[in-house]
Amino acid sequence: MTAKQKVYDELHGSKGGGLTATQRVVLVAILLGVALAIVSTEPEIPPELTRHFDRIEGVLGIIFLIEYVARVWSIGHDPVHRGVLGRLRYMVKPFAILDLVALIPFLLGWLGFETFILRILRVLRLIAISKLLRYSEAMRIVVGAVYDRRFELMFAMVLASLMILISSAALYVVEGEKQPQAFGSILRSMWWAVVTLTTVGYGDVVPQTVLGKVFAGVTALAGIGMIAMPTGILAASFSDGFAKARARAKAAAIQDEDLR
Amino acid sequence: MTAKQKVYDELHGSKGGGLTATQRVVLVAILLGVALAIVSTEPEIPPELTRHFDRIEGVLGIIFLIEYVARVWSIGHDPVHRGVLGRLRYMVKPFAILDLVALIPFLLGWLGFETFILRILRVLRLIAISKLLRYSEAMRIVVGAVYDRRFELMFAMVLASLMILISSAALYVVEGEKQPQAFGSILRSMWWAVVTLTTVGYGDVVPQTVLGKVFAGVTALAGIGMIAMPTGILAASFSDGFAKARARAKAAAIQDEDLR
Amino acid sequence: MTAKQKVYDELHGSKGGGLTATQRVVLVAILLGVALAIVSTEPEIPPELTRHFDRIEGVLGIIFLIEYVARVWSIGHDPVHRGVLGRLRYMVKPFAILDLVALIPFLLGWLGFETFILRILRVLRLIAISKLLRYSEAMRIVVGAVYDRRFELMFAMVLASLMILISSAALYVVEGEKQPQAFGSILRSMWWAVVTLTTVGYGDVVPQTVLGKVFAGVTALAGIGMIAMPTGILAASFSDGFAKARARAKAAAIQDEDLR
Amino acid sequence: MTAKQKVYDELHGSKGGGLTATQRVVLVAILLGVALAIVSTEPEIPPELTRHFDRIEGVLGIIFLIEYVARVWSIGHDPVHRGVLGRLRYMVKPFAILDLVALIPFLLGWLGFETFILRILRVLRLIAISKLLRYSEAMRIVVGAVYDRRFELMFAMVLASLMILISSAALYVVEGEKQPQAFGSILRSMWWAVVTLTTVGYGDVVPQTVLGKVFAGVTALAGIGMIAMPTGILAASFSDGFAKARARAKAAAIQDEDLR
Repeated sequence: MTAKQKVYDELHGSKGGGLTATQRVVLVAILLGVALAIVSTEPEIPPELTRHFDRIEGVLGIIFLIEYVARVWSIGHDPVHRGVLGRLRYMVKPFAILDLVALIPFLLGWLGFETFILRILRVLRLIAISKLLRYSEAMRIVVGAVYDRRFELMFAMVLASLMILISSAALYVVEGEKQPQAFGSILRSMWWAVVTLTTVGYGDVVPQTVLGKVFAGVTALAGIGMIAMPTGILAASFSDGFAKARARAKAAAIQDEDLR
Repeated sequence: MTAKQKVYDELHGSKGGGLTATQRVVLVAILLGVALAIVSTEPEIPPELTRHFDRIEGVLGIIFLIEYVARVWSIGHDPVHRGVLGRLRYMVKPFAILDLVALIPFLLGWLGFETFILRILRVLRLIAISKLLRYSEAMRIVVGAVYDRRFELMFAMVLASLMILISSAALYVVEGEKQPQAFGSILRSMWWAVVTLTTVGYGDVVPQTVLGKVFAGVTALAGIGMIAMPTGILAASFSDGFAKARARAKAAAIQDEDLR
Repeated sequence: MTAKQKVYDELHGSKGGGLTATQRVVLVAILLGVALAIVSTEPEIPPELTRHFDRIEGVLGIIFLIEYVARVWSIGHDPVHRGVLGRLRYMVKPFAILDLVALIPFLLGWLGFETFILRILRVLRLIAISKLLRYSEAMRIVVGAVYDRRFELMFAMVLASLMILISSAALYVVEGEKQPQAFGSILRSMWWAVVTLTTVGYGDVVPQTVLGKVFAGVTALAGIGMIAMPTGILAASFSDGFAKARARAKAAAIQDEDLR
Repeated sequence: MTAKQKVYDELHGSKGGGLTATQRVVLVAILLGVALAIVSTEPEIPPELTRHFDRIEGVLGIIFLIEYVARVWSIGHDPVHRGVLGRLRYMVKPFAILDLVALIPFLLGWLGFETFILRILRVLRLIAISKLLRYSEAMRIVVGAVYDRRFELMFAMVLASLMILISSAALYVVEGEKQPQAFGSILRSMWWAVVTLTTVGYGDVVPQTVLGKVFAGVTALAGIGMIAMPTGILAASFSDGFAKARARAKAAAIQDEDLR
């Protein structure tokens, strides 16, 4: 086993479905980077700490730089990406470009919002790459269940949009005169409608007339349906998804048995 | 294939279960009309923009007028609506009258709330007409699941009404003296009860006495049941609905096989 | 068929599982009575209207009185309640006493809170009596599903109580000094904990320290579990309940077939 | 049957799966202790009552002391814990140490927060010990259903975390300038994001710009998904859990039959 193959396995492979030791280190480094990006937006952080943050950022940048170089070098082990040309083909892949772009702020010591987004994307990417068997099975079931019932969920969304439109229009008519700031147009009423139908209910905008309260009460009750419908669709779809996963597992077990 | 038949297929038919090109254009025009109706209620829109809106409205009006005339003319292809009398019979159908009524404000340049309602109705109608097979399958499952358990859902609604009544009465008794504006009658307390039981919780009306808070806490906890019950009923019903849809799809596939 | 039997059927029987005409009239009268009881607590009702209310109350009282007398008289048709003694035995039954007690305020023209409770009880009773087959099937399924999983639901309630206790205690420790009015004791913090965990979130009491907000955020997230758990239990139980109801219906259909 | 065995059965055993009489007394005493700990944090309790509390505390302390001594003495009946050494081995078990530590404040008459935690732990312990068959079956199903789908629930939590991060970052960018106190850093925005995504919606922090409200509306709608996903996963898992429990019960019944 050559060094290149070892590095390839560590960075591009997956150990028994899980993350390799190096991938774990990179994951921790990325999570630390995200945490730093979050905390560094806080203005009340004392400057002493910020200086430490900058140093940690630098170290993380070096780690990511080494990882990037090692990743590009070791990809040559893969027959598809052999040679300089193969590696260049790897480098122009979207996620590889993303990696490179994500590197820049670390190396330049920039700490801002843009890096934050890039780091989230990197976390997502690593999860996707890592082929965590157990996790990805769960992810596959959850995503699959949502995808299977995308039309039902879209229909629920259309119903929800209509509910938002109708209750916004109703309160615009009923409360528009009394509270022009909050209900003076259908657009303005939509803020209230969304906040009410999702049962968030900040209370910054509340109907004051009797008729407004009657409509708002009906809206609030309709909000239960707006939560109940997607929840019910997802529950039923997860039920099917779990049954399918069990059937798959059983079929695989039978096949394993037959092979012996 | 005559021109009339082509127009008929474009306006009254459905291509492989989906919307035809013309129906898509009309749908976009209707959605644009709804958006304009919403935005045009906003008082802060500068007058320059409003003038543009008026022009778009005019264009939309012409599109809808052409569509209406083409619809009435091409319906003659349908044996049931042949000739002038057949077309008149089509024109007095509720949705055709609705189309005509919805046309008026566009042509006259009226932009108001009434048109808004009409436009929503038109969107609904188009969705219903379009026989979108994939969408309508989802819609049929969702609506069917709600319909199948309408008695259970009605029972949940009766329970919810009783909960609203009982908690309103309780807070009227407990907090009525302290906050006459908010809890001075059972009717007034109902606003609070609905807002609490749906877990919206605006916070504009909040009990202040210890006993009021105890009752409100119990009401808030009961609110979980009020959300859990319809959600659970719908989840179970969707589960059955998906199973039925799968059985139907399977039966259809077997029948297809048999026919070959 | 004697008059007594007819009256008995109208008041004590059920037509094809539904309510008889007389029972419908009584139900409407009771609902009207409940509505009057609710509205009459409103202090802003003009006195002219109140006078009308009093008259309607009187009419309702006479209807309930006639119904009560007719009920007691016609129960004699039932072999179990024959004669004066049988009727007395009927009259001392809890619901019959309730009927009599509910009558008093109507006849005396009292309109207050006490009557409100009695009227709700009467509505409940009528629903129970009416043996509405379709409704009661739904009610049986819903109540049965809740009953079947009462231990699981109780466990969820124990978990919820623990969550309320723990988050109350946490905020008492963290925010007690800063906001003694709201978090100055575990008892006081419980109001906040219930409002947060049920996701009502009035906003009358909100943590202000960073640590308080961290704990409150965790509490709010735990609140999702508090809603998800009973909803999930009920959804699964309704699923079983619907399956059982279908099996029952199938078994009944097979039996019907066999009898022919 | 010796006295030691009797005491052992009363304190360490379980009668037909339920709590023994002594365990019930101890449970009531513990619940009373928890209630006292809660109430005694309230500063408005009059000193006369506090004195009574102290006395009840003393009595409870004696009960717990007797129970502890009896527990240690009677454990000798168990072959594993025979003799002084066996008892010492029992005494150094974590829950036995907990019992001893929980005793101290009662005996010293301390009433504070520390005791509160200990008492909750004791309640939990007793529930665990009591092997309540019916309850524990329910608890086993509920805990089992959550455990079975821990990866799916964890994935839902990862999604929820990402949603919190993304909406915090969005509102930090959009509202940070306008409301520095509430949205001046991603960390500060997270309080708002959690409160909104869980649909608690206190209303203490509300976006004020149009763009902020648009993002907040999207966040509120996403909050439905955040509630729907774990609820759906749990509902499906409970469904499986109930089916498994039924299968277990059936298998047990068949085995019982075979044994006869």
